[in-house]
Parts: sequence; structure tokens; C-alpha cells
Amino acid sequence: MRISELSARSGVSIASIKYYLREGLLTSGQQSATNQADYNEDHVRRLRLIRSLIDIGGLSIAKVRAALTATEDETTPMHDAFGAVMHGLDELPTDDASTDIAAAYDEVQAWLEARNWKIEDGAPAPYRLAELIATLRRFGFPAAATDFDNSADFVERTAEAEVQYARSMPDRTAAVETMLIGTVIYERALVEVRRLALEAASFRLDETD
Amino acid sequence: MRISELSARSGVSIASIKYYLREGLLTSGQQSATNQADYNEDHVRRLRLIRSLIDIGGLSIAKVRAALTATEDETTPMHDAFGAVMHGLDELPTDDASTDIAAAYDEVQAWLEARNWKIEDGAPAPYRLAELIATLRRFGFPAAATDFDNSADFVERTAEAEVQYARSMPDRTAAVETMLIGTVIYERALVEVRRLALEAASFRLDETD
Repeated sequence: MRISELSARSGVSIASIKYYLREGLLTSGQQSATNQADYNEDHVRRLRLIRSLIDIGGLSIAKVRAALTATEDETTPMHDAFGAVMHGLDELPTDDASTDIAAAYDEVQAWLEARNWKIEDGAPAPYRLAELIATLRRFGFPAAATDFDNSADFVERTAEAEVQYARSMPDRTAAVETMLIGTVIYERALVEVRRLALEAASFRLDETD
Repeated sequence: MRISELSARSGVSIASIKYYLREGLLTSGQQSATNQADYNEDHVRRLRLIRSLIDIGGLSIAKVRAALTATEDETTPMHDAFGAVMHGLDELPTDDASTDIAAAYDEVQAWLEARNWKIEDGAPAPYRLAELIATLRRFGFPAAATDFDNSADFVERTAEAEVQYARSMPDRTAAVETMLIGTVIYERALVEVRRLALEAASFRLDETD
């Protein structure tokens, strides 16, 4: 299909498609006899993925590129590719951690060990969690890594099935795409469900006042 | 304290403090005899709140203003103030919903009703959840509002305690601030814990391969 049809099918403007091509997020179409680029279903799917990562995941172009690079190298073991994708979603803190964040980070590491959750060195999520714990404490909330045991028990129940589902895809690109979409959309959905629960709880409390 | 001390205490630059004052996110200091503005602990706390909403919640200045406005009017009933805060965190979709989102939205409303969760008309979260469900379907995931029953059961368990804790604060400003910080930080923490669980699950699957 031509770029105009690709745009109509994916809902992404031609200008944006050209930008993603220049930025290397999207592979070029096949040159046809008339010297026009010819696009296929993979391009439609990839464009939808890019838009979802930007619109729903709030990712920058650089982060989308980092996450998608993991889909390309077929020699990377699957677990490492998934790691690259997950780590690409988050950012490592740029400045040196303050004392309270460093203390919270040690707690998070001990907590991960106690749960027997193996996380790659340098993964951003433990740092991020430590920052959040330190921030809660600055606001006077009593907070500890072990507070998240209930949440961890809950998400752990479905995590393996989710990873297995992604790995069951016919090829690596589909596997990594599935993992990315699953992660970004389901975590966003969890946030929305949580907000709904809080609003519903607030309403109930008003009724019983 | 002077603006230089306020900056040192809050970790927010003087330029940013002046910007927040101009944008109305921060109330002016008391004019002292020497015609200098004098700031207090409320300003330190408010600045930390603003930074957390921006850095952790990823909120724009306009959204921070919308969320904080709810703390100001003492005549608004508490539940409405909480609603304004929660709704200020999210955005309503700007364009007309496509057919598949509209269908998902009806499902979400029926699901909320079945759960007996009372959500204000026009709240953004049901729309957002509908968008997510429609997006999952576009990617070929089988998705339904009822898929989120387990998540809803989980977050529901602590939602009332969380709202009650916020309402137990000595004044409305503290109550709304607590609700805001609690919402933004705990939902972010839940996302990080979920990512950790996925990475740990991926590692375990590799080991048993």
C-alpha cells in the first residue's frame, strides 16, 4: 500500500509517518517499479505500536526507539530483549542519589532478595521505587519497601502467564511488541482502576457520614 | 524565611519558585518591614508537593493548578474536592470517541454499575479505561471491562482506608495534599512493582527453559 493508505489504515498523519521513518522508528517501505514506497501490514502494526507507546505510555521518541531496538537483534536472548524493553520504559536518575534515596534503595534491594525476584543490575525500577519511598517519607508518610508486599503478591500472580503469552508469539518482533503493549496498557489500566476505586470509596464514605 | 532559604529547604530553584508564584501555584509570602517576602513551612510543603506532582506524576503546570485549586475553596464538600483533585490528574479525550471506544465505554459503565462503584458523570477515568480496552482489542488482545475485576478487588481493599487517612488530616489543604500525594506516588509505585514482577517472571522462565 502507498503512504496515503498506510496513514488512513493506521490513523497516523503522513507527516508523522515521514518523521518516524527519518527517526528510524519505522523501516522503509519496499521501492516499487514506479519508485514509490510500498508498505505492508507490519508497518500498520508498528505504527499503532508507536502511537500507543507515545499516547498511552507517554514515551518520548528516544524511549520508543530504545524500546524498539530490542526487537531488532535476533541474536539477543529473549530474556535480555525483554529486559531491554522494560528498562527502556523507565529512566535512571541522572544525579547522585541523596542519602535518603540511597537508604531506600538498599531496602528495596533487600526486599527484592527476600522475595527472590532477580532483577538485572542497573535496572531502573528499583531506583524509581526507592525514590518513591523516600518521597513518601519526606511528606511524613510512614513508608517501607515491605509495604509493597501485597501489591507484589497481586501482580506476581499473573506476571508469568503474561510473559509466557508474549513468548508464545510466532516471532521475536511479535513477542517484544506484545510484551511492550501488555506492559504499557495494563499498567495504565491498573492506575485508572485504582483512581476509580478511590473515587468510589470517597463517595461511600460521604454516604455513611 | 527569605526566598533563598525557601529554595534551599525545598530544593526548588529561585527561578522556579518565582515562576510558580507568577502562575499562581504558590501563594505570595508575607511582606516584611524591609519589603521582602517572608515564607513559611506551608510554602516549603507546597513546593515539595508541586515538584512531586510534576516529577513523579508527570503533570503539566496547568494540571497542577487544576488539582491545587480544589484545595482552596473551603465551601466545597470534601468528596467534591477529592473528585476535582482526581479528575484534574487525568484528561478527557478531546475528539469524539470512535465506535470501538464508545462500545468499550458502555461496557465500562455497566461494569462500574455491577461493582456498585459510583463515579461522577464526566470523570475522565472511565473514558481512559475504555480507550485502553479498545486499544488492546486493536492489537488483537481479547479484552473486556470484566478483566479488571481482580485488579478492582485488589485496589478496593485499601481504597477506603486511604481516603479515610487523607480525611483525618487537620485541615482541608492537608487532606487534599495527602490524597494527591498518596494517589500519584502509590499508583507510580504499583507500576514499578508490576515491572519488577514481570522482569523476575521472565528470569524464572529462562531458568526453567
